[in-house]
Amino acid sequence: MPEPQGEKRDVLQEVTPEVVAEARALAAAQRHAALATLDPADGHPVASRVNILVGSDGVPIILVSGLSPHTTALRADPRCSLLIGEVGKGDPIAHPRLTLRCRAEELVHGSEADLSARSHWLEAHPKAKLYIDLPDFAVMRLVPERVNFVAGFGRAYVMDGAVYLG
Amino acid sequence: MPEPQGEKRDVLQEVTPEVVAEARALAAAQRHAALATLDPADGHPVASRVNILVGSDGVPIILVSGLSPHTTALRADPRCSLLIGEVGKGDPIAHPRLTLRCRAEELVHGSEADLSARSHWLEAHPKAKLYIDLPDFAVMRLVPERVNFVAGFGRAYVMDGAVYLG
Repeated sequence: MPEPQGEKRDVLQEVTPEVVAEARALAAAQRHAALATLDPADGHPVASRVNILVGSDGVPIILVSGLSPHTTALRADPRCSLLIGEVGKGDPIAHPRLTLRCRAEELVHGSEADLSARSHWLEAHPKAKLYIDLPDFAVMRLVPERVNFVAGFGRAYVMDGAVYLG
Repeated sequence: MPEPQGEKRDVLQEVTPEVVAEARALAAAQRHAALATLDPADGHPVASRVNILVGSDGVPIILVSGLSPHTTALRADPRCSLLIGEVGKGDPIAHPRLTLRCRAEELVHGSEADLSARSHWLEAHPKAKLYIDLPDFAVMRLVPERVNFVAGFGRAYVMDGAVYLG
């Protein structure tokens, strides 16, 4: 992420509980993200769009088709990254965003956690009723392990997943 | 990318010149993207936001700070991916988007190509005048090698970079 003021990494700011809350609120407000995965064929990074739903525990979930390349990628290597945050007017890189480094955990189809996640998913993404019951659709939790939060000009933070999830 | 109609990959549609033009126009209209790179420390995929400018040759360029993690990543491994395309109303995954698999090529600072790129960059991103002349800022071309284009429901295409660039 470019730092428009030329700041150095060692001026990363202190992560307070308020900063964590701000980062969590940014993620919770979003319904989609960019997902970075590794192509299992050659290790090439691949960016794709996903819908997301962030639970009250702060862990984003995704609903994915078994036919999608990123699903195959996550099943082969669960390391992934989400870029979360909308762009508005003005310089796109002036807007707050989060980069979460995550580990994907697929929920067992039909398990209690899976059924609960699907119910919440349909509340957040009602259009998903068109395809959520297709047999190849799966729910994955993307558990944050490291978080980079750019809150604005001169406001950049890095925190461990455990700090982010509280 | 989830396929809401449960379509299989083997129903990918034929890439006509009109499809290429549609994909190129989508990219040319965008000023920002999500960039997927590989962390040189551990190979972890990382998603970040970048401003972009797509030249008339179809190759996106980015202006990056030497202090940014994605710059370090691209210098260590030029393989990367751009997700291009805005989300509008309705289901986010119903909106057209491109995933470009690219190879990053850094322009030599002060070369003719670099100076030309910086001039075009400032036309597209006037706010960059605040930082474009800082000594650590570099221009990179992200040369597409493979393109996935989701034009809408049931309209998915894959094309080689050479076809996309024409």
